[in-house]
Amino acid sequence: MAGKQYTEEYRIPYFETDIKGELTLASLVNVLILASEHQLNDLNVGEETMHSLNLGWVVTQYQMTINRMPKVDEKARIVTEAESYNRYFCYRNFWLYDEAGNECVFVQSIFVMMSYETRSMVPVVPEIMAPFESMAIKGSKRFPRIKKIDSEKASQKEYRVRYFDIDGNQHVNNVHYFEWMLDALDYDFLMDHRVTSVNIRYGHEIQYGQMTQSQVEQVMVDDIMTTRHKVAVGDLSAAEAEIAWTKR
Amino acid sequence: MAGKQYTEEYRIPYFETDIKGELTLASLVNVLILASEHQLNDLNVGEETMHSLNLGWVVTQYQMTINRMPKVDEKARIVTEAESYNRYFCYRNFWLYDEAGNECVFVQSIFVMMSYETRSMVPVVPEIMAPFESMAIKGSKRFPRIKKIDSEKASQKEYRVRYFDIDGNQHVNNVHYFEWMLDALDYDFLMDHRVTSVNIRYGHEIQYGQMTQSQVEQVMVDDIMTTRHKVAVGDLSAAEAEIAWTKR
Repeated sequence: MAGKQYTEEYRIPYFETDIKGELTLASLVNVLILASEHQLNDLNVGEETMHSLNLGWVVTQYQMTINRMPKVDEKARIVTEAESYNRYFCYRNFWLYDEAGNECVFVQSIFVMMSYETRSMVPVVPEIMAPFESMAIKGSKRFPRIKKIDSEKASQKEYRVRYFDIDGNQHVNNVHYFEWMLDALDYDFLMDHRVTSVNIRYGHEIQYGQMTQSQVEQVMVDDIMTTRHKVAVGDLSAAEAEIAWTKR
Repeated sequence: MAGKQYTEEYRIPYFETDIKGELTLASLVNVLILASEHQLNDLNVGEETMHSLNLGWVVTQYQMTINRMPKVDEKARIVTEAESYNRYFCYRNFWLYDEAGNECVFVQSIFVMMSYETRSMVPVVPEIMAPFESMAIKGSKRFPRIKKIDSEKASQKEYRVRYFDIDGNQHVNNVHYFEWMLDALDYDFLMDHRVTSVNIRYGHEIQYGQMTQSQVEQVMVDDIMTTRHKVAVGDLSAAEAEIAWTKR
């Protein structure tokens, strides 16, 4: 048993794709999270319920395997399930399939519940989890370790947080981190490679007007072109990631 | 007779809304253009036809009246029609209604046809226009004049064009101009006001890596809080706009 599955169709609009006409990482996460919100609403544990408990969901980690990104106008099928949870962590899976049923993307994620009162993490509320039929587990699921970037060898671009980077929760929507991470790479590198996997872990929140530093280092790991990333505001790390690439 | 109308439903996802939970100007234009592309496809004069003729559509001007922006999760109805055209200009209208049938947004626009061969404007191809049942007109439709910004009195922010600002046409998708224009305003101003009308005219294209200057000037016009905007790359103007606001 691994949680009740929720499925929806999604047609990729042109404005969620990049110069290659492929869904961007930021838009991928947007549409996956949208599907999970729809599941929460369907099961009557959506925003309203969370608000009444003064609670919010916060993602702490994504691990993505990308066979290929769907292209503009493609009809995709999105599937999600709240697989399991322990005292503090909820594990949710997402799949994106193409029309022929091929798995394009698989994402594992970790969410925690945050109290809006104390702005800190609280134990998972079992009543919220019940309708998902997720497995209650004792231990923690292992996600691959994200190796620290070597700041000495990294290059860096700076990004000022803009008004439209801020969402209804009054802080930067973390999908923007993908744009800052990837944009820090060279144009030619981005044109010649495509992402095959992403591991990202989130830390401190970022506020309007702050200057963020997006550091990137290119390394070969077992013959795989890999980039290590860090988005920070001064000494505070907002996200660290490891991305694997293949030549187009 | 004012052109065959095309209608579609659209539910506003959270990631197309701002800190207030309202559809952003950039996303508004994205979803309107998406509807017009769907009409083009329905009438068999879509991208494929245009590509075979080595032609593309370029918008030169929008005039928007915004009664209110739809909010996250609202179901909107989008209507569009290619109203009329003369030798060089095509006039297309868009409406966005809420579920109760109230008009939220009305947009008039001017499009031209561009040759990919010469990268310049060509006379409208009548075969492309035929299925829209648009009116062929002699004169030009008048759009309100956009008054020049007073650069002496304007404030300015700079934006480096990022990889994800570039679309499949290899240049900056012009919806990003709205972000640069509005972000140049103060946070408090944006929080306290909402847009009631936009007039924008496009000029030179912008390329990857360029630094753009977004200038803004606040003026009162007939008791209406108005901002004048210019997005430029050095001496080249990419867009000029006049936006009217009301207190929230």
